[in-house]
Amino acid sequence: MNLQSFKRYFPVFDWGRSYNRGTFSNDMVAAVIVTIMLIPQSLAYALLAGLPPEMGLYASIAPIILYAVFGTSRALAVGPVAVVSLMTAAAIGDVAQMGTAGYAIAAITLAGLSGAILLLMGVFKLGFLANFLSHPVIAGFITAAGVLIAASQLKHILGVDAHGHTLIELLGSIIEHLPDTNWMTLLIGVTATGFLFWVRKGLKPLLLKIGLGTRMAEFGSKAGPVAAVVVTTLAVWGFQLEGEGVRVVGDVPQSLPPLTMPSFSMDLIDALIVPALLISIIGFVESISVAQTLAAKKRQRIDPDQELIGLGTANIAASFTGGFPVTGGFSRSVVNYDAGAETPAAGAFTAVGLAIAAVSLTPLIYFLPKATLAATIIVAVLSLIDFSILKKTWNYSKADFSAVAATIFFTLGFGVETGVLTGVILSLALFLYKTSRPHIAEVGLVPGTQHFRNILRHKVITDPGLLTIRIDESLYFANTRYLEDYIYDRVVEDCPIKHVVIMCSAVNEIDMSALESLEAINLRLEGMGIKLHLSEVKGPVMDRLERTHFLSELTGKVFLAQYDAHQELVPHLD
Amino acid sequence: MNLQSFKRYFPVFDWGRSYNRGTFSNDMVAAVIVTIMLIPQSLAYALLAGLPPEMGLYASIAPIILYAVFGTSRALAVGPVAVVSLMTAAAIGDVAQMGTAGYAIAAITLAGLSGAILLLMGVFKLGFLANFLSHPVIAGFITAAGVLIAASQLKHILGVDAHGHTLIELLGSIIEHLPDTNWMTLLIGVTATGFLFWVRKGLKPLLLKIGLGTRMAEFGSKAGPVAAVVVTTLAVWGFQLEGEGVRVVGDVPQSLPPLTMPSFSMDLIDALIVPALLISIIGFVESISVAQTLAAKKRQRIDPDQELIGLGTANIAASFTGGFPVTGGFSRSVVNYDAGAETPAAGAFTAVGLAIAAVSLTPLIYFLPKATLAATIIVAVLSLIDFSILKKTWNYSKADFSAVAATIFFTLGFGVETGVLTGVILSLALFLYKTSRPHIAEVGLVPGTQHFRNILRHKVITDPGLLTIRIDESLYFANTRYLEDYIYDRVVEDCPIKHVVIMCSAVNEIDMSALESLEAINLRLEGMGIKLHLSEVKGPVMDRLERTHFLSELTGKVFLAQYDAHQELVPHLD
Repeated sequence: MNLQSFKRYFPVFDWGRSYNRGTFSNDMVAAVIVTIMLIPQSLAYALLAGLPPEMGLYASIAPIILYAVFGTSRALAVGPVAVVSLMTAAAIGDVAQMGTAGYAIAAITLAGLSGAILLLMGVFKLGFLANFLSHPVIAGFITAAGVLIAASQLKHILGVDAHGHTLIELLGSIIEHLPDTNWMTLLIGVTATGFLFWVRKGLKPLLLKIGLGTRMAEFGSKAGPVAAVVVTTLAVWGFQLEGEGVRVVGDVPQSLPPLTMPSFSMDLIDALIVPALLISIIGFVESISVAQTLAAKKRQRIDPDQELIGLGTANIAASFTGGFPVTGGFSRSVVNYDAGAETPAAGAFTAVGLAIAAVSLTPLIYFLPKATLAATIIVAVLSLIDFSILKKTWNYSKADFSAVAATIFFTLGFGVETGVLTGVILSLALFLYKTSRPHIAEVGLVPGTQHFRNILRHKVITDPGLLTIRIDESLYFANTRYLEDYIYDRVVEDCPIKHVVIMCSAVNEIDMSALESLEAINLRLEGMGIKLHLSEVKGPVMDRLERTHFLSELTGKVFLAQYDAHQELVPHLD
Repeated sequence: MNLQSFKRYFPVFDWGRSYNRGTFSNDMVAAVIVTIMLIPQSLAYALLAGLPPEMGLYASIAPIILYAVFGTSRALAVGPVAVVSLMTAAAIGDVAQMGTAGYAIAAITLAGLSGAILLLMGVFKLGFLANFLSHPVIAGFITAAGVLIAASQLKHILGVDAHGHTLIELLGSIIEHLPDTNWMTLLIGVTATGFLFWVRKGLKPLLLKIGLGTRMAEFGSKAGPVAAVVVTTLAVWGFQLEGEGVRVVGDVPQSLPPLTMPSFSMDLIDALIVPALLISIIGFVESISVAQTLAAKKRQRIDPDQELIGLGTANIAASFTGGFPVTGGFSRSVVNYDAGAETPAAGAFTAVGLAIAAVSLTPLIYFLPKATLAATIIVAVLSLIDFSILKKTWNYSKADFSAVAATIFFTLGFGVETGVLTGVILSLALFLYKTSRPHIAEVGLVPGTQHFRNILRHKVITDPGLLTIRIDESLYFANTRYLEDYIYDRVVEDCPIKHVVIMCSAVNEIDMSALESLEAINLRLEGMGIKLHLSEVKGPVMDRLERTHFLSELTGKVFLAQYDAHQELVPHLD
């Protein structure tokens, strides 16, 4: 391996060389803003995943640094995110009891597995696999996951016990425990939620109005969640609300991220491998779309395969430092970008800030109510929920609509893993189904041109002795029988036909099964005294046909252009 | 349901009306020939499935009659066939011990499940699902199954115990038991195999030479296996070879098919449902290709969905009359057809013949050596084995080759179910992979025509300000990113480009994800001062685009023909 290809795996050399005081100062400002935003967010996502709050901080430290070394996006901020935290809860909830040591180890192992999968996908350049998740399926999944996340946090707002991985389970469990509602917790939860909504919409304009500069106003509005944390913590401490049954974060160890090891138990790995794969792909898709959106604004380039390596090492780092699965988050990356981060060093500075928080601030959050964290999660995920994708796809394409609707229904009704798998499989199956029943158009010549179009849609010139059909699909095993049936049915009902031309302008491939079908069609038509011709066969398809006996057995000709076929096969009037 | 649609499900009314003495006599002759051929074959396939020999006869009686009522093929003969019998052995071998009552019940249940699946597929018109098995995958599977079947019969020729569902297991087990070879069994087995090979190739010409008529010669050669059965049975009886360790069929109950019930145990159904599905689809594919081959010769029509109903009722009949999974067999159908069968009544007469055999001949086959039955199976399946599909696909298409090679390898190495699933999944995955990286050609005008071809393959007219690309694939979620990358890379390296035309003659669909990508491309190019145009957009695609904002946001135009785009966008020299 020479230096160049070695450096390819370390984008840090790329931006590190030109690092200077100006970039440093911009990165530093961004890091402070992001750090303040991440402290409550990290604690909250740990809560969402059912893990001790400190694991949220740990998951935000080492992974950011590793991503800064291996990732290609300059603004992406890596750490726990809502959807992946929910998927983590679903995955490890199946193998361990929440609150046990096994539960934390399962989370650490899941991060390790996910890291290994991402790293392998990056090394083997399998980033294209993410393309098989269609946009509508992703949109539907994120929306449904947002609903599930919000529902899962209601219990903290109400101060009751509830659990479940589907909407029915969650709501049923909450309704069952509704009589246990802790009114003080509900007061804190509802107030915090209302305050945070107001911060999102109303604080920044207010700060601008009272004369603060744009940057300070931005900073102030990002500090809103911190203010909610501080005020509610002080309230619980001051009014001794813990005695009133308000649940608090409690003891959090005051420490740097610990050194941890994923489990190598085959049973555990076996149980977690499929969830790890789904988390990896969903995390990758979420991360890369954020990275590409931000890169496009600055005309920078994202290398998907290198991103896999960056996210893979970040997750492995999470696994060895007491974290859980991480990916590039939308809100934190946008904040990082808007705050002026220029290089991944901003991420490294954020990591230092969070490390300082982990060793110094943790005792102060003993009295932080869980309801406040739940409020930050609810406010964050409600922006993910957007059912308009259902309407958009309904108007545009019923196939896309079915895939979205199924994804949303199965995610809400049967959990995140079933939901995303259903979406992917259904969208692929619908695509295959469509290609197996291709659109076939009978075409004729548009007068005054050399152009051929559908006889049903355009006024075109045709001839009773010539049947020209354009097949709007590659010919492959799933649709060859359909083509055979179409031609036989069409020819039988129409006696004067002497020539059949298959116009191949939309045929991008003819596989072995289709070749055998064409041979059969050729033979059968020959028996009926009809010649079979092809036209507009593409270069790569023709190359392949030339390696077979088919062209020598073909009763008719292969025409470069359909117009040539028309000229030769239609008797001229003039 | 009116009478017409009721009758649609009973093709028997179709041919039954015109039944007369001539058809009867032709059907009768065919039935006698087929019955003689089927007696040893039915016993042999029961042996292959690991079942008592009488079950082979039972499986050939009721199913034939049900198929005669519900099936659409006039010549198809339904009963146990080699590949399905092997798949049956593999499926029930996993849930029960051979020779136990549970084993026979599992076979009966498998037939019931398979019948239910086929019937449901027929009622819901899901026959098209069989199209997703590509021709090369089927060819590879049949070849590999033939090898496995021949290997599984070697133990009977050698007179040893051996078992296994993969080639390695079978050969390993045989080699291990080789010292136990029974020499007398080997003598019978080798002699019978040699004789049957000679019957296949040499008997008919010999009979013709000694002056017999064609039909008698045909009849004589079909009776070859019966001769082998009679001679070896007499030899075992006469020389008391059972005492020498030659294994014989033994006691066979003298009875009509008994009334049996499939098991409704959920555990058993759960274990058998996937094998039942595979057996149904493989059986259907085998049957329908035989039926269509024979129907084409007489210009008759096969309705695939009705065939599913015919095969479904046949399998349900097998399940309730002590049989095991059945389908339309190649050799028996060809014999039936060649012998002059005109209607499905020939099948019913065959059923009567076999019923007579079941009640009268069964005591006579006590001394029939299993080695003789193994010889008939080996000779029959060797005609299935044809590795030339590997060479054909290698020359034509590496994707098809990979699918065949994987099917053969996994069938031999991991059993029939793994093999066929691997083949189907791999061929679909390869198709999806290809469509996710479509062929994109930059095109120019062929001088003197209105036709546009690839600039790399043809001498064409281009213009530096105009980039025209033809995408040889539908645009859908799996390839939209590829298209985006292609256009951005191409535009960035080439400054004078002012217009990009996407020629959509091969674009059969633009799904929601692709629409969003086109919107993104349009915006991005606009930012670079480049206009985006489309040309030759097909009717159905255009209909859909018209329901969106895309066309109003498009910076350029949509041209009916690429030639119009060229005329308008290229500055004229004259």
